[in-house]
Amino acid sequence: MHVDVIASVNEARSDDFIHKTAIVIDVLRATSTIITALSHGCKEVLPVETVQQARTCQLPGDWLGGERFCKKIAGFHAGNSPYEYMDEVIRDKKVVLTTTNGTRAIQKSTKATHILAGAFINASVCAGIALSLRKDIVLLCAGAQDVFALEDGLCAGLFVEELIQQNDLAPPLQVNDFGLAMHSAYLQHKDNLVHTLMNCAGGRKLSKIGFAEDVEYCAGMNTVPVVPFVNDQQSMKLFPVTPTLLIRS
Amino acid sequence: MHVDVIASVNEARSDDFIHKTAIVIDVLRATSTIITALSHGCKEVLPVETVQQARTCQLPGDWLGGERFCKKIAGFHAGNSPYEYMDEVIRDKKVVLTTTNGTRAIQKSTKATHILAGAFINASVCAGIALSLRKDIVLLCAGAQDVFALEDGLCAGLFVEELIQQNDLAPPLQVNDFGLAMHSAYLQHKDNLVHTLMNCAGGRKLSKIGFAEDVEYCAGMNTVPVVPFVNDQQSMKLFPVTPTLLIRS
Repeated sequence: MHVDVIASVNEARSDDFIHKTAIVIDVLRATSTIITALSHGCKEVLPVETVQQARTCQLPGDWLGGERFCKKIAGFHAGNSPYEYMDEVIRDKKVVLTTTNGTRAIQKSTKATHILAGAFINASVCAGIALSLRKDIVLLCAGAQDVFALEDGLCAGLFVEELIQQNDLAPPLQVNDFGLAMHSAYLQHKDNLVHTLMNCAGGRKLSKIGFAEDVEYCAGMNTVPVVPFVNDQQSMKLFPVTPTLLIRS
Repeated sequence: MHVDVIASVNEARSDDFIHKTAIVIDVLRATSTIITALSHGCKEVLPVETVQQARTCQLPGDWLGGERFCKKIAGFHAGNSPYEYMDEVIRDKKVVLTTTNGTRAIQKSTKATHILAGAFINASVCAGIALSLRKDIVLLCAGAQDVFALEDGLCAGLFVEELIQQNDLAPPLQVNDFGLAMHSAYLQHKDNLVHTLMNCAGGRKLSKIGFAEDVEYCAGMNTVPVVPFVNDQQSMKLFPVTPTLLIRS
């Protein structure tokens, strides 16, 4: 089984995902927020690219969520902080979500057989499900403004570690050079993740505008053991118990 | 001072280099070989992109060097192994060199104010010279076939370490997220570099075709303390004693 890590959306070609399982990673904050929303009873999250698309896709009762420049969009119910998606009010709601990088990454991987949302908070269970799907795996780091973001790379490194540890197939996983580098970087930082995330470009930016708590939350490892996947309607729901339900046309 | 690491030639835009010092890194093997040739008395190395260009640029007495698919080009004096450039016969010769990735990387960085060739074998002295030039620094990993190569990333990580250690200016260096990741990966591997390089994609490929000794040589840290730079004629020579000689128009 091959495991490839791609550094940012900019470097991904849509054909890289054919016949594979994609794990999209946008630690600060899109995938952390999607995982959090679904774990708190949100029915589904529909990721869309533009603010206009979000408004068009909204049906009565749907929530509008998302950010531009890390801040809530005017007239939307919520921004892109996971803390805004923990309330009882989210239960059974559909959220139409638009974020700067994460939703683009999800759409870029649309040719994959399976698309999962990964973050530090669900890494172990997400890696396990990806392995169970028995396809080559592509970890796509969303990055920020088309540039590699350290938090996504370190999270991809954690996924490589989890995949290696949980893999019970011979021969061993074939990890690409970028994945090996991220694995090493993760091992170097694993005991001080909160500090590292607080000091990388994305973390500093969020802290500066009052979202330091978000960064700390998103650096938590395996705190929210659920896995969102993209279904045939391009919407994200919780991964069901049997992997067969997840097979996309 | 900013220090940016770029993952591969594919991701570099030529404007990224304006007003900066570029350090081009192609550990296996172009920059390691250029450093070796110049340290053994070779007068200059002219990097060119194609085999045809190499033949056109060759003047009487010049050597033709280079590889395609890691092997010597038919009719050329030498391939791309540093061991081919250690002989007395190289003294005072000009070498016209074409390699798959390294020469492309050098040409990509042509808008930089200064272009230096970096590798494990000259990292410390090369980092010191780059700092002395007092410009923002871009470390360009050549990669392999437009894809990130672990050995170049780890070497960029060593350069980040050297730049941090040798920098005597306040405030501290601003390293981009990719550079921070490579720095961490380097720290994780620094005590077993030969083993790591032998096992990465490029190292395995070279070992398989009989160049394991090259890989071992290229993993040696600070064994050849000289620094090639690109002059106004797009040729590489040894960095002279006074940095002022290096200023390009």
